[in-house]
Order: sequence, then C-alpha cells, then structure tokens
Amino acid sequence: MIEIGIVGASGYTGGELIRLLANHSQAEVTVATSRKLAGQPIHKVHPHLQNSDLKFESVKPEDMEADLVFTATPHGASMNIVPPLVGKGIKVIDLSGDYRFDDINVYEKWYGLKHEHPLGAVYGLPEIYREEIKKADLVANPGCFPTGAILASLPLVAENLVDRVIVDAKTGVSGAGVKPSETTMYTNVADNVIPYLVTNHRHAPEIQEKLSKFGDVTVHFTPHLVPVIRGILSTVHAFPLEDVTSSYVKELYDNYYKGEPFVNVLDVGEIPRLSSVRGSNYCHIGIFEQDENGRLVIGSSIDNMVKGASGQAIHNMNIMYAFKETESLEYLGLHP
Amino acid sequence: MIEIGIVGASGYTGGELIRLLANHSQAEVTVATSRKLAGQPIHKVHPHLQNSDLKFESVKPEDMEADLVFTATPHGASMNIVPPLVGKGIKVIDLSGDYRFDDINVYEKWYGLKHEHPLGAVYGLPEIYREEIKKADLVANPGCFPTGAILASLPLVAENLVDRVIVDAKTGVSGAGVKPSETTMYTNVADNVIPYLVTNHRHAPEIQEKLSKFGDVTVHFTPHLVPVIRGILSTVHAFPLEDVTSSYVKELYDNYYKGEPFVNVLDVGEIPRLSSVRGSNYCHIGIFEQDENGRLVIGSSIDNMVKGASGQAIHNMNIMYAFKETESLEYLGLHP
Amino acid sequence: MIEIGIVGASGYTGGELIRLLANHSQAEVTVATSRKLAGQPIHKVHPHLQNSDLKFESVKPEDMEADLVFTATPHGASMNIVPPLVGKGIKVIDLSGDYRFDDINVYEKWYGLKHEHPLGAVYGLPEIYREEIKKADLVANPGCFPTGAILASLPLVAENLVDRVIVDAKTGVSGAGVKPSETTMYTNVADNVIPYLVTNHRHAPEIQEKLSKFGDVTVHFTPHLVPVIRGILSTVHAFPLEDVTSSYVKELYDNYYKGEPFVNVLDVGEIPRLSSVRGSNYCHIGIFEQDENGRLVIGSSIDNMVKGASGQAIHNMNIMYAFKETESLEYLGLHP
Amino acid sequence: MIEIGIVGASGYTGGELIRLLANHSQAEVTVATSRKLAGQPIHKVHPHLQNSDLKFESVKPEDMEADLVFTATPHGASMNIVPPLVGKGIKVIDLSGDYRFDDINVYEKWYGLKHEHPLGAVYGLPEIYREEIKKADLVANPGCFPTGAILASLPLVAENLVDRVIVDAKTGVSGAGVKPSETTMYTNVADNVIPYLVTNHRHAPEIQEKLSKFGDVTVHFTPHLVPVIRGILSTVHAFPLEDVTSSYVKELYDNYYKGEPFVNVLDVGEIPRLSSVRGSNYCHIGIFEQDENGRLVIGSSIDNMVKGASGQAIHNMNIMYAFKETESLEYLGLHP
Repeated sequence: MIEIGIVGASGYTGGELIRLLANHSQAEVTVATSRKLAGQPIHKVHPHLQNSDLKFESVKPEDMEADLVFTATPHGASMNIVPPLVGKGIKVIDLSGDYRFDDINVYEKWYGLKHEHPLGAVYGLPEIYREEIKKADLVANPGCFPTGAILASLPLVAENLVDRVIVDAKTGVSGAGVKPSETTMYTNVADNVIPYLVTNHRHAPEIQEKLSKFGDVTVHFTPHLVPVIRGILSTVHAFPLEDVTSSYVKELYDNYYKGEPFVNVLDVGEIPRLSSVRGSNYCHIGIFEQDENGRLVIGSSIDNMVKGASGQAIHNMNIMYAFKETESLEYLGLHP
Repeated sequence: MIEIGIVGASGYTGGELIRLLANHSQAEVTVATSRKLAGQPIHKVHPHLQNSDLKFESVKPEDMEADLVFTATPHGASMNIVPPLVGKGIKVIDLSGDYRFDDINVYEKWYGLKHEHPLGAVYGLPEIYREEIKKADLVANPGCFPTGAILASLPLVAENLVDRVIVDAKTGVSGAGVKPSETTMYTNVADNVIPYLVTNHRHAPEIQEKLSKFGDVTVHFTPHLVPVIRGILSTVHAFPLEDVTSSYVKELYDNYYKGEPFVNVLDVGEIPRLSSVRGSNYCHIGIFEQDENGRLVIGSSIDNMVKGASGQAIHNMNIMYAFKETESLEYLGLHP
Repeated sequence: MIEIGIVGASGYTGGELIRLLANHSQAEVTVATSRKLAGQPIHKVHPHLQNSDLKFESVKPEDMEADLVFTATPHGASMNIVPPLVGKGIKVIDLSGDYRFDDINVYEKWYGLKHEHPLGAVYGLPEIYREEIKKADLVANPGCFPTGAILASLPLVAENLVDRVIVDAKTGVSGAGVKPSETTMYTNVADNVIPYLVTNHRHAPEIQEKLSKFGDVTVHFTPHLVPVIRGILSTVHAFPLEDVTSSYVKELYDNYYKGEPFVNVLDVGEIPRLSSVRGSNYCHIGIFEQDENGRLVIGSSIDNMVKGASGQAIHNMNIMYAFKETESLEYLGLHP
Repeated sequence: MIEIGIVGASGYTGGELIRLLANHSQAEVTVATSRKLAGQPIHKVHPHLQNSDLKFESVKPEDMEADLVFTATPHGASMNIVPPLVGKGIKVIDLSGDYRFDDINVYEKWYGLKHEHPLGAVYGLPEIYREEIKKADLVANPGCFPTGAILASLPLVAENLVDRVIVDAKTGVSGAGVKPSETTMYTNVADNVIPYLVTNHRHAPEIQEKLSKFGDVTVHFTPHLVPVIRGILSTVHAFPLEDVTSSYVKELYDNYYKGEPFVNVLDVGEIPRLSSVRGSNYCHIGIFEQDENGRLVIGSSIDNMVKGASGQAIHNMNIMYAFKETESLEYLGLHP
C-alpha cells in the first residue's frame, strides 16, 4: 500500500482524486492539504465523501510525507510546490499547466508568467507516453481540452492525412473550478451556450505542441461553455488531403487505440455522448462520413474531471507503480 | 460465482443492474432479456456499456437458466413472469409493484388490475427487513418514492413521535423510464417543476402500508417532476406530538440507522443533496429545527435508479447470498 | 409621459423593470442608478438591452428627479433611500422587505436590523389592495414567495375553510440575485433540489401577517432551490375543516379572482407550469382533488422576477396613475 | 385589421405565431387549424395561451378564409397546402422547407421527395430580400440554422473575404418540434451535447445556395443538440484570404446591417448570448480577433422559434403589408 498526498484537495479535482482512490487496493490517501480549511473534515466541502475520516491539513511541501503526491494546484502555484517534493524523492503528478510544455517560451507567453523552476517532466497521456510514464518521477497531467482534442485528432495527424484541424469544443462548467464567478452562475450558464477565449485559449498551444510531434499540422481551437456539469465534447473538423471512407478511418482508429483500456472507438456514425463517459475515465471517439465538400468530422467525449484530470492522473500513477492500469478506475459512465 | 438473469434489460433499471454488477466479484450477468431487441449488443441502447459482450436475448421464464433473476419488468407483467421462475427454484428480486403489498386489495385498487398470481414475498428494504431478506426466495424491491419517504420518516413513526406525515417529493426524470412521452420531453421538463398525480399516486398506499406497521400514522404524498436526471429529494413535513430538539432527533436517527452501510444521517442543518448520492446506493438524511409553529422537517436524498431501484436490488442479492453487503456498490456519489 | 427613476438598476429586478417598461406608452425610464457602474451603458450588464441608450448614473436620493421611483435595493438599504424620496413628493414603489410589515417588531426580528425610518406603506398586492394602491404614495412591493403563496391560499383562508397551510415552494435561481455565490453556481444547482432556510425563511412571517388579516390560520413555509432560471411553484398542502369537492374549490377561486387581469384559475387538475408564466406577469393557480386522508392541494406558478417583483411593481404603478392595468405587461408566458 | 389563418397551429411554431400576434394592432388570428385537435381550446396544448378564445378547427385549404395564411406544416405537407391557398388569392408565408430552394433538384435530393407543386417564392430573409418581400404573394420562411448561419457569414462572403466557412451550430431542443422522441427526451439531452446529422443535415445546402448568390464560397455545416430550450448559437470558423483587424470586421458588419431593426452587431469580443435574444426576434452577432494561425470566428445567436421561424414570418408579414416592421415584435430578450 503506497501513501498518497494531495496538495490542493479542496477543489473539484482534489475531490475527484479522493472519490476515485477510495476503492484503490494499493494506494491510500493519507494527506489532503488545504490551507484555508485546515482542520475541517473533507465532507464539509465534498458532501459526497461522508464516509471518509480525512481532514484537511496545512502541510508545507518540505514537510510532506508520502510516496506520491498529486498537486491539484493552479498554474503558477505548482512551480513552487513541485520542485521541493521532487527534491525529497517523492513522485509527483502535477495537474496544472506548469510542466506540460517542452518549450518554456510558449508556456511563459500564454500563461503570462516567468517559470521560476523548470524541470523535466513526462506529458501524462498514457495513450502516447506509456513507456516514459513508467519511468517518470514527475508527470505533467494533460489539460482537459488537450486530452479530448489530441485523442480525437492524433491518428489523422500521425498518418499525415491532414495538415489542419479545427477543434470546436463544448465543456461542462466544472472545468471552471470550485470558485464562484459570474461566468459559472446558474443564471448565466443555463439555457445558454457561451463561446469564450474564442481564438486565444491557452490549451490551443498545448494541443499544437503535442500534435506537432506526430505530423505537420496547424491547430485551431475554440471552447464553448455549455449547460452541462461534467464533460467535454470535442468536434474536430478536418480536411483529409485525399478522400477517405469512414470504414478506413474506423480501422485507422481501431488500430491506433488497440489495447487501450480507456479509449472506445465507436461504430461509424455512433454518437460519443457525454453521459456515456460521465464519472468515468473513458474517452469515446465518434467517426462520421466526409461531407460533400471533403470535410471529415471526428468527435470525442470525455469527463473533464476524470479522463480530463483526476482519473488520468490515477491512470498515470497506476502505470508508474506497475499496478493494474484500471485499478480504481473501473467506474462505467453514468448514463442517463 | 453465481449466474444472474435480468428480465427486461433494455430499460433504465436493467442498464443500472448491468452497470453496477460489472465489477461484482461473485455474481455475473449471463442473460439479459429483451424481446424487441433480441440479438442486439446491449451497447446499442446502453451506450455507456461499450465493453460488455452481452447481447439481448428473448428467453421465456420457463427456459431461464440462472441462480437469481432480477425482473425489471412493469407491474402487471411481473406477476406472470415471477411465478414460473420461483417455481423452477430460481431466486427472484422483482423491481415492479406486483409483490410489494401485503394487502392484495390495496394493490388491485391502486394498480387497477386483478392480481392473477399472488405469492408471499419479503419487502426488500434492508434497513427494516434484513433478517427476512436473508431467507427469502422472492424479494419485492421497494418503490423509489417509498424508499426515500420511509427512510426519512421511520424513526419518527417508530418512536410514536408523529401521527401524520406530509411527503412533498421531487423526482428526476429517469423515474419515468426509457420510453419517450410528452411528460418527459426536454422542452416540457427543463426550467419547470411539475406536480403530478398530486393526491393519487400509487406510491402513497405503499408508504402508508409499510409505515403503519411501526406506528399509527397518516401519510400524505405528492410528487413533483423536476429538471434533474437522477434523484429523489423527499421533504417530510411532520408535527411532533411534543416539541423536540434537533439534537434529540439527530440522536434518534443516528441510533436507528447505526451500522447501516448505506444510510448517512447528516449533521443537523446539513443539506441532503442529490449530487451527494448521484449514481450511488446511499441515502442521505437531513435534520432541521422545528419551525415557530411546531413543524419538524426531515429531508432525504437518494438516486432513484440505485437506492431507489437497482442498487437496492443488488444490496438485497448480497444479503440473500451472504456476500459482503457493499460488494459492487462501493460507488460514491458523483458530486458535482 | 411620466418620468421614472430606478435606484439599484444593475440587479435582475432593475433589468426587468427596464425590459418591461421599454414598451410603456405613458412612462419612461429616465434615470437608472448604480454607484459602481456609473457611466457605463446598461447593456454591459443587461446584455439583452442592446437598444437602450440609458447609462448608469450615480444619483443621491435627494438629487433624484422623477415622478416615480422604483427602489430595487436590498433590505436595510431601502430604509435610507425611500424617506428622502417620499419627502420630495416622489411616489415610490419599494421592492425590498423594508416596508412590507405592519408590525415593525416582526420585521426587526426576522431581518436582524433596527428599522431607522418606518413609514406608512400600502402592501402592493393588487388582488387585495387595489383601492389602497390607487391612493398610495409609497407601495411596499410583496416578496416573491409571499406573492405565490398568498394568491394560492387566500380564498381558502378568507372562506375560513382551513386553519393551517403548509407551503412547500420551489424557486428558480434568479431569486438569489445577480451576485455570484456558492449557492448559485451552476455545478451546485444543476441536477439538484436544495431545501434552504428550511424552517426559518423570512418570507414565512410575511405570508403569515398578510393571510392573518383574512382568517385565523397558521402558516408553515419551506423553500427549495431548483435548477430553473425563473419561476416559483408553490405547493400548498391544506386540511379543509370539512370536505370539499374540487368543483366547489374551483368556483370559490373563480369568484375570488373574477376580473383580475393577471390571475388564471386553471381547470381542475390542470398543472400550473412555470413555463406558462415565464417572463410574464401572470399567476396560474391549479386545483386538485382532496386525497383519501382529507388533504387539499393548491398549486400556483409565477415568474419570481415579474409577478414576484418587477412586473407587479409596474402593475402597482399603473394602478397608482390610473393607466390601463395591463399596459406594458401584455407579454404572455414563454412556453416552451 | 387583416385576418390571419394558421395551418398546423398545434406545433411550437404555431404557438409562437399566436403568442406573438396576440398584441398586433393590425392583424388578428381568426383561424387556427389542427385536424387532430379540432374543437379543443388552444390552451390545452399551449398552456401559456390561457386568455385566448381560439379553438382548433379542421379546415381544408380550399375552404380557408383569411387575408394571409402561415403554413406551419412539415415539409412534404406544405407543397399540397400552399398552392390552393395561393390559388384563392390568399397571401402565404410557408415555414417549411418546400419553397426555399431555387434549384428543385437540390430540394428533391436532400428532402428525399418529389416536389409535386413547385411555385415561385421569395426567400423570406428581410435583411437580404426586403424589396422582393414587399411584393411577394408567397414567402418561403428560412430555416432556423440558415437564418443564424447566413446572417453571421454574409458580410464576409459578399465582401469576398472568405471562400470557405465552417458553421458549427448548437441548437436548443424546441427545434425538434412538439412530438416526443428518444432524441428529445430529457434524460437523453440534459447534461449532454449531441452532434447529429454531422455531415449531412439538409440545412447545409440551403445555406450554400443562399450564400453562393453573394460570393464564391464553400459551406460546411454541423449541428449539435444542446440542453437548451430555445436558441441557436452558430460559430462560424472562416479563413480570410488576407488578414483583417477586428475593428475592420466590426465596421464591415455595422455597415452591412445598418438600419436593420433586428440585427445587433455587438462590440468586438462581446458574446452573443442565447439569453439576450430569448423569446425575441433579434439576432446578435459577435466578432472576435483572428487566431495566430489566421482563423476568424464570427458568432451569432437567435431564438430558433422567433427569428428562426415565427417571428421572422411575422416580420415578413409586416413588410408585405407595409405595417411597422417591428409591430408585435417589440419583445426584448428574456435574460436571465
């Protein structure tokens, strides 16, 4: 049984880590930090976790005792927390954007911050970097939008079938985090669809950097906030350099994701539903016929807090420790 | 490993049984019936169950091979399916209303049917009838509203603190089943709250019959359809015959449900949220102060498809076979 | 053409006043105040009001120039703004709770404030106080819950048919106002039903005081927050002192509200939908059969921001100035 | 006062026509047809229209008496109803797809029908065809998606700035009509985003045909069903042939829609919200900066049942009769 610490456990991704790890047979959360809520039982902010005895604690990185720590902290904060943990020999999976970029200049430009403590890290998308993750001490857990967008686009890019993808994404509100704001008020979200950071969201360069390693491709990205609690539906509009049949594309994706425990390539024309993956670590990929004018559409659905954050982080942990990859991630989607 | 059959597996409660049983270590679904969909893989109607190899089959009760069968069939249908199964020595948990009533006349009046095949059955509310369930061959799984209403009211009734309860319930739409209707259209439900069968819902006499065994009480019941997928919030308005403090009531409930794996009596004033039990087999109970005019309010939240149907059915199965009671029901609520 | 001032125009009720008055033939909004947003065009916070040239202004009560002012300010604030306006001879309709109570002690107890500037005011429920409103200089616009609860209960109380009503209300989120909070976050409200201030909401004594003038009745009140933008559904559970037929009750209500332009008593059994009154000044009242144990249920639906606030305020203005009562309130409900 | 007939008045667009025309000073609905519901008061299916005395009638086209008829009938049905009406000298505004296409072959291919009775008709988008509409006897009211997509794209196309647009649209559920189906069930729509007819929706060729008259452009179109009652948000991804500033684009759109009573070009970066146009005849257009890779995004929001159907139809009527264009369409958006 390994001991797990969660830094920043009062947010949604912290709650998800605790929820999912509750049934893990080889890992146990022993420390859940929150400076503001130190001393309070976690069910005061995570009302679904009534049976846990955990209380929030205020623990400095240098004083942390654990085998592995998930840093569920905002970008800018992680860069100061991760290095001392790594320095102590603790394995770290960071859920922020701080260690995701190879090119530190891209990070600094898009996050508007100077990176004080760069470190080598493995990008924690198991479908691409499983072998590297096995040996990693620091994993940078992918962004939620990049997870859905990359999984939907990668086989096309790797096959050099396309040189441009337009990702029109629709996200649930939990992606904005636990802190109230005008943006996430019920009255502003319900019965609305809200494009935001329309041409300048910082997940665009993350998708671009990762896909570029597999092919020459230009990425365009626009997110929308939709009246959904959890889930990201990514609609990828692509223009194959030569016409392709849907059965060819289906076979391409089937082969690409063969053996992957959490990727389901659906039958041609089947819809990747958010409800089909709700609360689970699955990614569903939908494949559609080209339109009359040559456009190909691929869709993917994930739960932004599970495959898009905490579930993928646990998947990474399982790989790092050679646990069964699906351990504590057996939850199926909650449909309806 | 016992073999499980599900009759009527294409509906929501059928899907929930398969979802929840997917990770059971001692039971396996081997037959899932649907006459209309025979031959189709189940993921065609349960899109979240992509990894199952099950196909719908058309199997007559007499030809069913299984250790235990869940009949997820409508009232009126179950009464013709259950007896031949029981006759073959198969244990049965029936999710319809057909075997819930002690008084067959009450059943026939409220369901508008003649009961062709009455049989002795145990009412499958484990918090009351655990010992009887252990020995049962036929369990009548409680209705969704009765589950929430009874758990919220029972300690008050058993203590003879009240002689009247008014249950104002709010239910998610999945309770209406998988078949489209005007009532369940998005445009009719969203942004609405719809009282229905306001003073004549057939779950009223079920609550009345079961509570009456514990005390002299009159039950009033009104359900409302709310824009929620899963969940029932029951608001119980009661008038204690003598004034009580909330700490007294809290202690009463704590004692009553001591050791129950799926009932959480919350701190006084804490809200029983639907999200806290979403997708899980838990019932949360909220306790509030009496108002100035002597009314006491108790609230309960359940997931109508889990604790209100399929989860409770599996709990009953676990008890019948002396499995660990929480086996395959470890899912925590999906909040947010 | 009279000139209208709105104090506190940046909130939801301020926005509704401007929206509804936009087409009024005899009244024009000439001043819309907001200290924080002074100088900004109103469409920056009311994105649906693109065609208005109004800008927020910072104007002290003493400097206000207008024939009538709506004070859409919080309780506690209104008591300092209303007296100077009234002192200048400006007619005032106050949307806060500050002038609603006859008994100042009840106000001070429930609002936790000392009332610095009590003034005589007419309670602005036109269905009761039309004649008094005609002559009023200060109208206290009713609370949203009291509007729905009183209209649903009044004929029963006035006829001395009941001595107790239990009002189980369900409200949309706009009732909580424009300011973000945990309570009103999408992720906390969606797919949930949340009882709050379960036995101690300050609208309870308002309903109690107003109904008590018409009969000897005890009021119990519990509100719930539901995933709805606008609307309050009030379910009134009552116990007639003698049995009544639904047609008798229907006739009672028909007679009571005869000629009222904004109250629709529906056919027996017809559901009062929130969508049927959405965006409109109507109140729909639903009448149901008594249950087997003698309980009678009456339901009412209103839009909390229109009949429950700004629309009713304009109705009061129309009465004060002998305008056509329905002027600028002709909007029908937005169903679906 | 002209007399109006509505054929197919029991559907959502029929209900909207009655709602909006209720306050028209020069037109009155005198006949509302429905074969199935003949004899019933309209409030039985349109619960918000309680104050109308209209009853559904069964009237054959040949027997219709009216100055103008709205045919709110499905495609395939309209082609048999419109010609006899036109033959009697009645002006007709058809809300189906039957008379929208110049090229009958395109219609027949995409609608899978032989067109039995082609007639010359004006495409009823007032922002393009105002002069032709003035003189028209038969107006083909545009589809809901084409209305939003064309208004968002047209200035770019007319200016020859783009040769390709990708329209990723998100629609509310009311667009699917009043008839229950699996697609529109609450449990299937809520908390989901559902791409459908991903590359073969029949509104694609309608957008293509209309835009092609103004420039050489290839249209790609994909609709998504979102958990929204009313509204279409169209996200147009375009690639200007030369780089443009957002202020240039803003000026282009401002000039193009100058004087249009129902089009609001928002400030650069301002979001076109569904709530801002909910229940109203407005179209809001949002303009965003080009992304790093040269993509320009334009968004538009409309209420699919008003500007996307019944409101635009009434606008057309007002133009045909030289009424004030905004008559009975003064409703502002219902935000929040």
